[in-house]
Amino acid sequence: MKFKGRDVIDINDFSKEELLYILKTAKKFDPAFVKSKKSNYTIAQGKIAALLFFEPSTRTEQSFKSAAQKIGMGIIGFDDPEATSMHKGETFEDTIRIMDAYADVLIIRHPEPFSAKRAADVAQIPVLNAGDGPNQHPTQTMLDLYTILKTFGKLDKLKIAMVGNQKHYRTMHALSAAMFKFSGNKIYGISPKGLEMPAEFKTKNYEDVTIDMRKLNQTLAEIKPDVVYAGRIPKEYMKGDISKYTYQMSIKTMEFLPKHCIIMHPLPRIDEIDPNLDTHPNAIYFAQARNGLYIREALLSLVLGRI
Amino acid sequence: MKFKGRDVIDINDFSKEELLYILKTAKKFDPAFVKSKKSNYTIAQGKIAALLFFEPSTRTEQSFKSAAQKIGMGIIGFDDPEATSMHKGETFEDTIRIMDAYADVLIIRHPEPFSAKRAADVAQIPVLNAGDGPNQHPTQTMLDLYTILKTFGKLDKLKIAMVGNQKHYRTMHALSAAMFKFSGNKIYGISPKGLEMPAEFKTKNYEDVTIDMRKLNQTLAEIKPDVVYAGRIPKEYMKGDISKYTYQMSIKTMEFLPKHCIIMHPLPRIDEIDPNLDTHPNAIYFAQARNGLYIREALLSLVLGRI
Amino acid sequence: MKFKGRDVIDINDFSKEELLYILKTAKKFDPAFVKSKKSNYTIAQGKIAALLFFEPSTRTEQSFKSAAQKIGMGIIGFDDPEATSMHKGETFEDTIRIMDAYADVLIIRHPEPFSAKRAADVAQIPVLNAGDGPNQHPTQTMLDLYTILKTFGKLDKLKIAMVGNQKHYRTMHALSAAMFKFSGNKIYGISPKGLEMPAEFKTKNYEDVTIDMRKLNQTLAEIKPDVVYAGRIPKEYMKGDISKYTYQMSIKTMEFLPKHCIIMHPLPRIDEIDPNLDTHPNAIYFAQARNGLYIREALLSLVLGRI
Repeated sequence: MKFKGRDVIDINDFSKEELLYILKTAKKFDPAFVKSKKSNYTIAQGKIAALLFFEPSTRTEQSFKSAAQKIGMGIIGFDDPEATSMHKGETFEDTIRIMDAYADVLIIRHPEPFSAKRAADVAQIPVLNAGDGPNQHPTQTMLDLYTILKTFGKLDKLKIAMVGNQKHYRTMHALSAAMFKFSGNKIYGISPKGLEMPAEFKTKNYEDVTIDMRKLNQTLAEIKPDVVYAGRIPKEYMKGDISKYTYQMSIKTMEFLPKHCIIMHPLPRIDEIDPNLDTHPNAIYFAQARNGLYIREALLSLVLGRI
Repeated sequence: MKFKGRDVIDINDFSKEELLYILKTAKKFDPAFVKSKKSNYTIAQGKIAALLFFEPSTRTEQSFKSAAQKIGMGIIGFDDPEATSMHKGETFEDTIRIMDAYADVLIIRHPEPFSAKRAADVAQIPVLNAGDGPNQHPTQTMLDLYTILKTFGKLDKLKIAMVGNQKHYRTMHALSAAMFKFSGNKIYGISPKGLEMPAEFKTKNYEDVTIDMRKLNQTLAEIKPDVVYAGRIPKEYMKGDISKYTYQMSIKTMEFLPKHCIIMHPLPRIDEIDPNLDTHPNAIYFAQARNGLYIREALLSLVLGRI
Repeated sequence: MKFKGRDVIDINDFSKEELLYILKTAKKFDPAFVKSKKSNYTIAQGKIAALLFFEPSTRTEQSFKSAAQKIGMGIIGFDDPEATSMHKGETFEDTIRIMDAYADVLIIRHPEPFSAKRAADVAQIPVLNAGDGPNQHPTQTMLDLYTILKTFGKLDKLKIAMVGNQKHYRTMHALSAAMFKFSGNKIYGISPKGLEMPAEFKTKNYEDVTIDMRKLNQTLAEIKPDVVYAGRIPKEYMKGDISKYTYQMSIKTMEFLPKHCIIMHPLPRIDEIDPNLDTHPNAIYFAQARNGLYIREALLSLVLGRI
């Protein structure tokens, strides 16, 4: 396994062993596992991360900025592409090459699929994909895996109920594919009719569960999942009786679930999760977000060859 | 006295002894008192400050960013709430919790009163109030106190003429209340009629001096203050003969004041102070702004438990 | 030679010896010359650079931010003057003075000529001019000199063909003047009619070469330059048959040039250089941009008195 100088573009570029190595490395940045108070700021001092956010994404940007600085890096970049030279007619490739000249690693967010790959093709330094439209967001998938591993101590023989928009949600597509690398997992894709996962993203361990969302609790009670992974249902795609697509997990939902079942969500949440659930010990979506810090500290350290 | 982990929301939450301890700590960051050239960047390396500016405030934001980095911290956050997930419908509380996950201290500026308190209620890490609308801006008050202490070596038995809008100016309200904690101080609130300080903010040592502002110099000559604290007069609230509300301190004003009297202003100033006064040794408003750095370095170090 | 505390406003403020010293210092930050992997982040830890960008300039801003952080500095400032207190009516001078209070060096970009000088007049800390409209951009000129020196090991007895808008291009004006400080250089200012360099910027070693730009290759073949310095031709200033002003250097152009001739460009480029030229070893415009990092690291270290 070699990580130094490597691009992180697509979760599928990583073998099961590589993913496990990354997750293991993330533990070194997680206070839950590291009792020493030693800080990590000496890991990459003097190195620069360029964050090129061609579309806004608060939590991904803030998490990467925090992670980079926690290991001692400086940060440059932009989160408003209007502010760049691109408005003077500069090409995407030239923008990438100039930032490549000023930095040691590029972190790119862009609304178009495969833009991170295009960036990696011209950059000499490692490129981390922070979301390329509907396509990939590999550090999100890695932090999801890390959260599951941290909870259960394993990534196999688990039942995951993914609830919400299976069709357009790259997070659901990628997590499902990643869990398929590990044995014995079963994914239940719970969605209203019309938002089922497209065939090209379905793995053998994936099962459609198309329901009226008013019956979510009963459906979960039948599945008995280890993880409920909730996401937004885009009402703009739905027609007719909107209540069929409306669901909200709450403290009540927990009664229908196994005692050990955790609730995950990539955030931001809107109505999918009632704030009264937030204080439940199994509602770990904010801890899940924090796990993103450790994954990103680990990845930055690895691609810079500092671990 | 315990500062580690503490929120800094309201100047009135701090006892006289606590305030003096903070001011004493600030001296450790002030080259006027520390002759050693030792830098402070090792104090909080690897720690992250999240600056959540829901409304712009150049000098407060820049001062906090400088202070945080001077003690080695990294910085994340935003100064344009439009750029955050809140436009996707995320609640204020969720935004606070997600930033709480990524940082070690939160610094919040918000146009609504008590928003810093709301943030502190959900955040697990210390929250510093960088101004919650008309309510509080405790680090401004602390730097005002520090500036007075640095000049006179004491915070009691002083006469302070606060000139300008007493009614809407949180800086005036809070400074007056803070000086009341120390003995023998007298505050003169000089304002045009209609801009007197509201009764709920008045302390026993506060005296209204309602005047036609064209008579400011004579009034100051009678008071013989140790400190003139100037602020903006909002002409938008005034009616009729506007010249009655127009005052401008200038080099001429100094002739009416005791030789030792200093001129303070929270800045930015518009017409209240003629630039010809800037070079006078008693015009210390830019030095006052710089004192804000030392107060903020001290507070960050204290709430992080690093001093 | 004394650099500590010095302002960097105009390339003409520096003697030949001072320029050579700056270029020599830049080598210490350039991996091409420094084989040690020792990082430079200890040089200026705890120091703060304030970047005041009153107009956007991606690469200059990013390059300064990278350089400052590579030597350990923190950064504050703004790149959207709307976000500053200036919209509250604060003067330029007050904005400078307040940032002066919070930082250790000011880096200013402003659309108006001599604004950097105005800033230096009120600031107590060193001011670096990052471009004051049509006037000066001294770090650009220094990185141009550095790139030439790095390539040829000398700055004299060279032929430079500057291609494009000689009239409005401060980069051309300043590079020409700077090369005149060194002996035996010859500058050919190749432009369409109407875009010749104004008389006040012409040095004795400068020669106008006014041509139909369709004849660029033949003209270059006659000149046999060591350096081609390309820049944008502003079509908005041109009338009539636009093709006369249209030129594009490409891989084909190299056949007309001496084998050792390098192609420089301050970037961003639009149509002046065909991307098919990018991979040619003599096309060094992205390396040239990277050289800006070393110049800026050197200058910041010098004016802070840390080298």
